[in-house]
Amino acid sequence: MTNPTAAIVLIGDEILSGRTQDTNGNFLAKALAARGITLAEIRVIGDETALIIATLNTLRANYDHVFTSGGIGPTHDDITADAVAAAFDVALVTRDDAIAALSRNYKNGATDLTPARLRMARVPEGAQLIHNPVSGAPGFSIGNLHVMAGVPKVFEAMVDGLLPGLASGVALIAESLRIDLPESQLAEPLAALANEFATLSFGSYPFIRDGHYGAEIVVRGQDAALIASAINRLAQIKP
Amino acid sequence: MTNPTAAIVLIGDEILSGRTQDTNGNFLAKALAARGITLAEIRVIGDETALIIATLNTLRANYDHVFTSGGIGPTHDDITADAVAAAFDVALVTRDDAIAALSRNYKNGATDLTPARLRMARVPEGAQLIHNPVSGAPGFSIGNLHVMAGVPKVFEAMVDGLLPGLASGVALIAESLRIDLPESQLAEPLAALANEFATLSFGSYPFIRDGHYGAEIVVRGQDAALIASAINRLAQIKP
Repeated sequence: MTNPTAAIVLIGDEILSGRTQDTNGNFLAKALAARGITLAEIRVIGDETALIIATLNTLRANYDHVFTSGGIGPTHDDITADAVAAAFDVALVTRDDAIAALSRNYKNGATDLTPARLRMARVPEGAQLIHNPVSGAPGFSIGNLHVMAGVPKVFEAMVDGLLPGLASGVALIAESLRIDLPESQLAEPLAALANEFATLSFGSYPFIRDGHYGAEIVVRGQDAALIASAINRLAQIKP
Repeated sequence: MTNPTAAIVLIGDEILSGRTQDTNGNFLAKALAARGITLAEIRVIGDETALIIATLNTLRANYDHVFTSGGIGPTHDDITADAVAAAFDVALVTRDDAIAALSRNYKNGATDLTPARLRMARVPEGAQLIHNPVSGAPGFSIGNLHVMAGVPKVFEAMVDGLLPGLASGVALIAESLRIDLPESQLAEPLAALANEFATLSFGSYPFIRDGHYGAEIVVRGQDAALIASAINRLAQIKP
């Protein structure tokens, strides 16, 4: 049986402008790897309805799960929920359970819900809420699409609540070894090992530190003993 | 005249596994913003030929420029050049100028070029080399696609050499103001300002710090005086 597959879509102009270095993608990538869900793509797109719709419809057809981050707050540039409803061709409805989740965050409960705050209780018809223990305003899942907030603390809490409910796969084991040789000297023995240990994958990540060349070799697979013996062989590579 | 558009493709399993936090995307995003080239998408994909080909062909048809990072080293998992040649349906050729660029990096010049190192002199037919002042091995441009290394120091040096040769647009000016109010209280006055200053774009980036809610409001546009007066109005928003 093969592992479930996934894509992540980070929605927001602030990453594309270079103003913000994203951390949500890396957080979720690690969490998916630990659960044996294979992350195939990450896409970063701006607050633009047509591109959000096209991106979500392509990815939800191609992968078992699609996770989004960003664009579900109360301001005028928060258009993710609208775009998701359009992508699924369903209505966007203000739901009582979403209002209840939202109200918990305010001193006077639902009486504090201004029109701007009520925007955050709008979810596409047929969606299930994703719990937000940090600030109340929920995310939602519809079909195989999981829509979460962009604020890292909220995103991370939503991921922690959501993932245990999704079918997991066999977690990949990864071991790495740093070799202080230029990648070009490693290439041939590495290709030979990759051939010999055909059920494992070998990645080579070169670096330059203080003018010296080296590479981090990462061996991934599901058999810990086999990985250990591949690492042992790697350690014997000499210039 | 509208600004040129661009997409970035980061190629490599290490970002998708969560092992590496990418920095190349953020570096290039900032450099493009400074030159008035509008970055519309970033995609991260793995070392998989079919997906690389499909992604590059979609993006080079949709945007003025496509920049890639990763997968042009000497090891068996470096398949970007092969995929690019396939995407353009041209041959991959070992070129003399690429060999010369590569040789500069080795003590004995071209006589040090092992078969693994020679892999890095293969470029798609019709491509132009991108200079690598750090480690010799060149990147290349073909059509509107610019193929660069994944090692951050090399990637950054290639970007610095490449961008001045591309047509630039009008650089966007961005000013930001931190407002220590929850986004839901900002939403209405912010939407009103976005309406009033219709040629500017207003982004709201909420945060939670020490349990307090706030938002960084970023105003972007091309008219510095107009942006200054919008920031001035923003500063008058009170709870």
